Amino acid sequence: MNAAILNVGTELLLGEVVNTNATYLSRKLQQVGINVFFHLTVGDNPGRLKQTLDWLFQSMDLVICTGGLGPTRDDLTKEVVAEYFELPLELHVESERWLQQFFAQRQRTPSPSNRKQCFFPRGSTIFPNRNGTAPGCAVEMPGENGKPSRMVILLPGPPYELKPMFEDSVFPFLESRSPFRLATRNFFFTGIGESTLATELDDLIQSQKDVSIATYVSGGMVRLRLGILLSRGEDETLAFHSIETVIRERFSSYLVGVLSEATVESGLELETLVVHGLVQKGWTLSVAESCTGGMIVDRLVSLPGVSRVFRGAVVPYQLPMKQALLQVPEELVKSHGLYSQQVTLAMARNLQKLTKSEVCLATNGIAGPSGGEKDHPVGTILVAICSPKGEVCERFQFSGDRATVRKHATVASFQMLRKLLET
Amino acid sequence: MNAAILNVGTELLLGEVVNTNATYLSRKLQQVGINVFFHLTVGDNPGRLKQTLDWLFQSMDLVICTGGLGPTRDDLTKEVVAEYFELPLELHVESERWLQQFFAQRQRTPSPSNRKQCFFPRGSTIFPNRNGTAPGCAVEMPGENGKPSRMVILLPGPPYELKPMFEDSVFPFLESRSPFRLATRNFFFTGIGESTLATELDDLIQSQKDVSIATYVSGGMVRLRLGILLSRGEDETLAFHSIETVIRERFSSYLVGVLSEATVESGLELETLVVHGLVQKGWTLSVAESCTGGMIVDRLVSLPGVSRVFRGAVVPYQLPMKQALLQVPEELVKSHGLYSQQVTLAMARNLQKLTKSEVCLATNGIAGPSGGEKDHPVGTILVAICSPKGEVCERFQFSGDRATVRKHATVASFQMLRKLLET
Repeated sequence: MNAAILNVGTELLLGEVVNTNATYLSRKLQQVGINVFFHLTVGDNPGRLKQTLDWLFQSMDLVICTGGLGPTRDDLTKEVVAEYFELPLELHVESERWLQQFFAQRQRTPSPSNRKQCFFPRGSTIFPNRNGTAPGCAVEMPGENGKPSRMVILLPGPPYELKPMFEDSVFPFLESRSPFRLATRNFFFTGIGESTLATELDDLIQSQKDVSIATYVSGGMVRLRLGILLSRGEDETLAFHSIETVIRERFSSYLVGVLSEATVESGLELETLVVHGLVQKGWTLSVAESCTGGMIVDRLVSLPGVSRVFRGAVVPYQLPMKQALLQVPEELVKSHGLYSQQVTLAMARNLQKLTKSEVCLATNGIAGPSGGEKDHPVGTILVAICSPKGEVCERFQFSGDRATVRKHATVASFQMLRKLLET
Repeated sequence: MNAAILNVGTELLLGEVVNTNATYLSRKLQQVGINVFFHLTVGDNPGRLKQTLDWLFQSMDLVICTGGLGPTRDDLTKEVVAEYFELPLELHVESERWLQQFFAQRQRTPSPSNRKQCFFPRGSTIFPNRNGTAPGCAVEMPGENGKPSRMVILLPGPPYELKPMFEDSVFPFLESRSPFRLATRNFFFTGIGESTLATELDDLIQSQKDVSIATYVSGGMVRLRLGILLSRGEDETLAFHSIETVIRERFSSYLVGVLSEATVESGLELETLVVHGLVQKGWTLSVAESCTGGMIVDRLVSLPGVSRVFRGAVVPYQLPMKQALLQVPEELVKSHGLYSQQVTLAMARNLQKLTKSEVCLATNGIAGPSGGEKDHPVGTILVAICSPKGEVCERFQFSGDRATVRKHATVASFQMLRKLLET
């Protein structure tokens, strides 16, 4: 099936909202073997919406629409699709009952305009909405005169309504109609560049017909993603066996981990590898963040269950706090300078005394945009670690704005931890 | 001018990358009075790219393309556009010289394929790239037989290349060709719902022809945005004067601040209001984060210059750290329970002793997904503040996943601070 994603909403065209729905849906459709050829966004304008459907169905079998299912006069996606397919809108009694319940539970009464949310093009498959008043639906129009059939799936715009609806109902609906599902493997490497890896994989890329092989750079690592479209009932482990063996043999010295698709989607690859490493060693971690100001901890704490290995953190942001919260003596700062290895190591060491964590990491430096000095320009970052393996302190010079420098410093810190935990 | 944004890149269709370029460009185009009617994403496929240009130019005057300007064989946007307009590609000598410099500075040599990045459709305006090897360009095709002219602007895909190029060159280029610029005012209110505000603004919305009035909910506040398209040289303050006066009179008791468009774009409205409030009072802030785990601090430290008012933070994530880092006695936890007002207030109080900050905030609770108890289900959050105005502790019950609960708790904390600093 060839699909397009059609996002309806003037707020997207005004740049008020980032279109994460298109990204999410693209990933999910891949998993059931559906190829996405277009993302298209239009405003709440029936004429342009119809014109767009016309154009998309010249080459597509499936259009997934998001947005425009609300109760207001602007919300017209369903009405336009019904008109496009020349189908009447009919009341879905179950949805109406459910809408009444939804409002009753919240001690509110539905407005008359909410009732239009219970009408759907004749013959639709209805997808209930756990988190809002707009159910979704799928409408299919059989092809005439040898033309392929056309299908529209209508979903609500807010991501917290769309995602659960997709997981609960739309994914199974599409899966049941698709002969394929996508299985993936994500390998993470360090110490080898993306282009070198790609070159050394070239024979595999050329010889493998069923496996898609792609490389990416993320979080200071190189990611290799294998994808295989499996038929129903086909064994995943078996399908990957031969290529996985070759990859592990060929690149074993660079491999730092194999992570699930869900971890990669969440963007928490580095944090996950660090936590795995700590669990394996049986060590705990504490962090002292100056220039990174909470970013390392925030990212760590995004991981559920991190309390097994993460003890706590201190953010001594103003200079006197290095003494008040971490007992770094003023004299040390005076004699070596604030942005010195000595001060940064003292932060890590003193944190270890306070928290008794096996591993203590400290960051120190100048995120900018101001505060740079002659010997320490904006972007100067020091990271120190005290651990059972000893003490280490590295100095980095990053460029970019404040957010970029803080992010680079955070990634560098996670990389140092990952390396420490590797062997 | 009617514009469409056309993003080229298979990685977008695979859901590997969120399309933030379309959002960014939409906002910027608005500012020079250009309306965006479509966002469209296609893969690295010359046929579909051409088909898309054909369709867009049926109704648009301007198409802004991003992506596909790189050195590889897949990067074909410029070639397709040249073919579409039937223009030859010509070497831009200045770009070639600049490319050589770019590589020389990095002690690398350009590959032969980099040279194609210096060729542009005849008659193009070239936009230099500070952060990469692909310059952008604008190509205009005068309309024939009374048809309007068509323009394509080609920009690189990576946001860190696209954004500086847009600010440096493309924005001034468009501004010089546009008779208008958009001026905006962003008012933030609390204590009044979005729908009530909209109802009470209805007479203004009906009577104002030149001012666009829109309401949004963001960060637990209601935002009212006024927009006026000004002619060149027209006075902004004067243009807003009468409507601004009415709004300030009518909603003064709900108004918490007026913020710049840049602050709203950065998403740091709440943090900015809190920091303004602290500066005005001459107070400093420190934070103890348990369940929010660094998120409050990370957001605060995103603001440049926050070190004037933000002293530091402690994240006592594991239970024993509440004692080790904050001296909260074990007995207090035993007698009142961990998720009690007493413990949360003790965190804030003890932080005040350590940091001597006028305002100390503490968060405590269960972000989930596990760890819930009978009396304290997942989503139970306590926030305590000690300040010169006294002590306060609020209990919240949030629903949603871990990330959502942490985010709600963070927003609630900022809201409590904002309120405290208001009077």
